[in-house]
Amino acid sequence: MSTDTQWLVNGRKRQVDPSDRGLAYGDGVFETMAAHDGVLRWLEQHLTRLARGCEQLGIPMPDRHALAAEVVAAVPARGSRVVKLMITRGSGARGYRPPEPCVPTRILGIGAWPDYPEANYTHGIRLGLSTIRLADSPLAGLKHLCRLEQVLAQQELAGLGLIEGLLRDARDRVVSGSMSNLFLVRDQRLVTPQLDRCGVRGVMRDIVLAAARDSGLAAEEQPVELADVHAADELFVTNSVLGIWPVREFLDTRVAVGPITQALQRQLGYAHAQ
Amino acid sequence: MSTDTQWLVNGRKRQVDPSDRGLAYGDGVFETMAAHDGVLRWLEQHLTRLARGCEQLGIPMPDRHALAAEVVAAVPARGSRVVKLMITRGSGARGYRPPEPCVPTRILGIGAWPDYPEANYTHGIRLGLSTIRLADSPLAGLKHLCRLEQVLAQQELAGLGLIEGLLRDARDRVVSGSMSNLFLVRDQRLVTPQLDRCGVRGVMRDIVLAAARDSGLAAEEQPVELADVHAADELFVTNSVLGIWPVREFLDTRVAVGPITQALQRQLGYAHAQ
Repeated sequence: MSTDTQWLVNGRKRQVDPSDRGLAYGDGVFETMAAHDGVLRWLEQHLTRLARGCEQLGIPMPDRHALAAEVVAAVPARGSRVVKLMITRGSGARGYRPPEPCVPTRILGIGAWPDYPEANYTHGIRLGLSTIRLADSPLAGLKHLCRLEQVLAQQELAGLGLIEGLLRDARDRVVSGSMSNLFLVRDQRLVTPQLDRCGVRGVMRDIVLAAARDSGLAAEEQPVELADVHAADELFVTNSVLGIWPVREFLDTRVAVGPITQALQRQLGYAHAQ
Repeated sequence: MSTDTQWLVNGRKRQVDPSDRGLAYGDGVFETMAAHDGVLRWLEQHLTRLARGCEQLGIPMPDRHALAAEVVAAVPARGSRVVKLMITRGSGARGYRPPEPCVPTRILGIGAWPDYPEANYTHGIRLGLSTIRLADSPLAGLKHLCRLEQVLAQQELAGLGLIEGLLRDARDRVVSGSMSNLFLVRDQRLVTPQLDRCGVRGVMRDIVLAAARDSGLAAEEQPVELADVHAADELFVTNSVLGIWPVREFLDTRVAVGPITQALQRQLGYAHAQ
């Protein structure tokens, strides 16, 4: 999403002020969305999480309808794009203390679609385990700009030749993937790790939980241990761009790409690569 | 450090690419330094910490001598300035995984001197206690760009009318201030909190430890509890811009501005505001 990405900063084609607090301190939030033929998938859910993040950080959320219109207008009418939308606390005096009043910066990037392999959807992925521990945070659940834990995890996974891996917290609980949320199926029940102390509450995670319940499946947020992952009947990971990827192997454990994962893929339109 | 700051991005007057990973993920490190009449204080120590941070994150450190020359050349020959130097992992493809190879971005800002009140140096400051808990991190000690904990703490302290406050970790240990390191004097011994699990290893902290030992004072890094802070004979906070500020009040505990604090201020040239 560098040379091939079109950027708008506060609605204009330009770059970012080096004094922006998003750069200086990670002082902001972001969303990454899928756009197909001019349609932003789950736009309302993304804007709702963005607004919640802004509220929690004390950043004035830009007008929601104007923001939505700006995003939709920037997306081409044909083809698939990844849309990244950042809201930062804007520029301000030096130092951690937030300026009062603050004028947030909105940074919108329209990038190439990643073209993930079809096999990720049909045969599933190999899932590893990162040694990076996610720290407890008062900002648990938010998608803020401080993401070095995820960068370190992806650096480690790259060395292992894996596209994704699970992260645990300090209590050895499994939290999520580095760029995705995790779901387990066991005894016809869907489980995803609780995210009350750390992790990102993915938009797709909420959508999968709701879709499962809509179709009569029990679906719960619970503490998850590594042993639960090894014992699962089915495993899959989710995010708003990749959708739903079954897991075919977790460490040395083979996992079947099962009927509940496939039904959710079909239900939500993620049975194949876009 | 916004309108009044002169910025150089990779040595030229321009802005920052919105795809820079420093903005996207806090994927970088920074130093904040004091410059007086063209002289960067503790420049070598800052560059050493920067190099250590780059190494730990796997970011190629720019040539140290060229970087030093660029910083020195950007500082005016007269007057005092705050110098901020960021090194990020540069631009790259979308996603947490670091690009290989990566071309780091160096961002240099020369800003106005903060003009702290003279009384902060002579009479000391009131020090509060933040409710924000610093999380354990594999990047403990580093001054990386993910600083939302410090932003939240300063937001809280602003509401209390305080310039600085202490932060604890999840085990109730005192770690540091939000923008400074903490020192306690008790029974003629200097103590500063251990930073093996979280916190920033300030350049000034190392300098104060070394200066104390040079002058024959016992100086140790130890676990520090709130009770230790309340029981201290003297308290002071340090960073590279403010230097050394005595604490005259911690919560409801009055503290004397004592002889060891004053001797260290004189020894290192921080007895008065610049």
